[in-house]
Amino acid sequence: MNLESSLITWIQKKSGKLSSAVKLGIGDDCAVVKFSGDLIFTKDSLVEGTHFKWGYQTLFQLGRKALAVNLSDVAAMGGVPLYALVELGIPKKFSQEKIKEIYRGIFFEAKTQATTIIGGNIVTSACFWISITLIGKSAKHFVTRSGARSHDLIGVAGYLGLATAGLHSIKRGLKGYGVLKKAYQKPCVLVGVGSVLAQKRWVHAMIDVSDGFLKDLNHVCCQSKLGAQIEITNLSIHPQLSLWAKKNNKNVFHALLSGGEDYALLFTFPSKHLKNIHKLLKNNGILFNVLGEITPKKGLFLTQKGKPHPLPKCLGYDHFS
Amino acid sequence: MNLESSLITWIQKKSGKLSSAVKLGIGDDCAVVKFSGDLIFTKDSLVEGTHFKWGYQTLFQLGRKALAVNLSDVAAMGGVPLYALVELGIPKKFSQEKIKEIYRGIFFEAKTQATTIIGGNIVTSACFWISITLIGKSAKHFVTRSGARSHDLIGVAGYLGLATAGLHSIKRGLKGYGVLKKAYQKPCVLVGVGSVLAQKRWVHAMIDVSDGFLKDLNHVCCQSKLGAQIEITNLSIHPQLSLWAKKNNKNVFHALLSGGEDYALLFTFPSKHLKNIHKLLKNNGILFNVLGEITPKKGLFLTQKGKPHPLPKCLGYDHFS
Repeated sequence: MNLESSLITWIQKKSGKLSSAVKLGIGDDCAVVKFSGDLIFTKDSLVEGTHFKWGYQTLFQLGRKALAVNLSDVAAMGGVPLYALVELGIPKKFSQEKIKEIYRGIFFEAKTQATTIIGGNIVTSACFWISITLIGKSAKHFVTRSGARSHDLIGVAGYLGLATAGLHSIKRGLKGYGVLKKAYQKPCVLVGVGSVLAQKRWVHAMIDVSDGFLKDLNHVCCQSKLGAQIEITNLSIHPQLSLWAKKNNKNVFHALLSGGEDYALLFTFPSKHLKNIHKLLKNNGILFNVLGEITPKKGLFLTQKGKPHPLPKCLGYDHFS
Repeated sequence: MNLESSLITWIQKKSGKLSSAVKLGIGDDCAVVKFSGDLIFTKDSLVEGTHFKWGYQTLFQLGRKALAVNLSDVAAMGGVPLYALVELGIPKKFSQEKIKEIYRGIFFEAKTQATTIIGGNIVTSACFWISITLIGKSAKHFVTRSGARSHDLIGVAGYLGLATAGLHSIKRGLKGYGVLKKAYQKPCVLVGVGSVLAQKRWVHAMIDVSDGFLKDLNHVCCQSKLGAQIEITNLSIHPQLSLWAKKNNKNVFHALLSGGEDYALLFTFPSKHLKNIHKLLKNNGILFNVLGEITPKKGLFLTQKGKPHPLPKCLGYDHFS
């Protein structure tokens, strides 16, 4: 690991006091951490031009989000985040002050989730990217994408469609739509909710909605070798999203079903636990909707007020298209 | 983590059988691994234009090297590599076959060091980069950069200067120099040597020589708050390096002292253990040189046959210049 000298001291200072489990933090070839049990690992990145454009968010927000997308993966397993390794690919002209501002965002987000930055790297790169590895403690019963069962209900915790509408509003310079813009710039990840859900062994499958509801549901269905039926009018529509769709001549269902980056949690569970889930999520002040059911027949089937609704050609965001 | 669908199955298959400690591998939001003890983490990358240019090595070699640079960090702590997370930033035109060839190189290198790929990510990026996170088991007595003591001898296991001369030979299309080119394209990392050295509690400090001998020695000195005196004629010069320097009118000491990417191990130890070290490394068939001594006085001081030799302006490779 190579964090160049003048930045190391600053980053070390800002990373705060290390817990006794961290035997060696930033500044050596490796970090050393004591642990016993089941660990979880994820690695996700934000890449200039692919995941964001300059000017659509501040550098601080970019740093926050780079960590948030990883925290959301941990949430989707029901885990507890512990440590992060942060790597930045930085164009030559990029100033140290800009790098620091990104790190400030990362440290801010890390603090909200009691996550310690234990190492990383900064390298020169023709294009800008942030790649973060997050290490967490697994839930006793970790929840995979592949555990869905036939006739499970499909629930979503959190609003959908806001971030994609927010991005559109920022791009076009639209006034207002604060909730939508905030959803894009400062996503709120549901680490606590994921952890609470994973404590219930009857939550069979879970994923975070990063690529779009239908695309992520499709991941669950494919990996569980099952299908799903969705009644699209079951989706809660945030008033600002309705307004945005109306004023901008947009199909609200497209945003709800295929818009990415909301970091809601999609999970499946038996219908007999519906009341339990309602209570659980209400206690956490989280919006909750049941959108449909897992089916033995493969494929995704949509209805609108009971009548068949066509499946969009593009289910969501494709990371590699 | 998002590895796009058609590639996932291929990568999953190639990653081989998972040990019982891996509860969940590639293909979900996180990987899950059971562990007890001290873990080490490192994160390093190869970036197009910064660390390599196309055509200077095959895609297979690039994959090998991307993992090797991380393995070398683990070697420098005396650890044992266990798991890796692999992330690729790929320009849109890049074919799946090319991606697979890079992965073949990664899997090959992983196999040589009993390392399992447990997850990762593939994202579109304007420029190409590979970022790898390596997770390993720490040595009981892990060796840091900051542990050097006054009057420790400074030892190097492995040849220096070969990779930089190899890169020059490849760039210029020079015939011959197979050893030099191999050093650049297929670096051999000293994981076993690092582990053997770390078992000796009297090996006080260690670092892998990735940025150049003087630069990495300087890291050890700065972090140990000490200095070093080096007799440059103590360096073993590989016959092909001598020939290369002579034929290409190059200063051989520049390659030896400031050339990067050799992945030799630099370590410090008390002089009374010199015989021990000689025996230990001879048994492993590894070249070993004692280059000088750690001094209470800060700074690096070079001599050539006892006479002062100027310190080069640039100590080695700067990742962020």
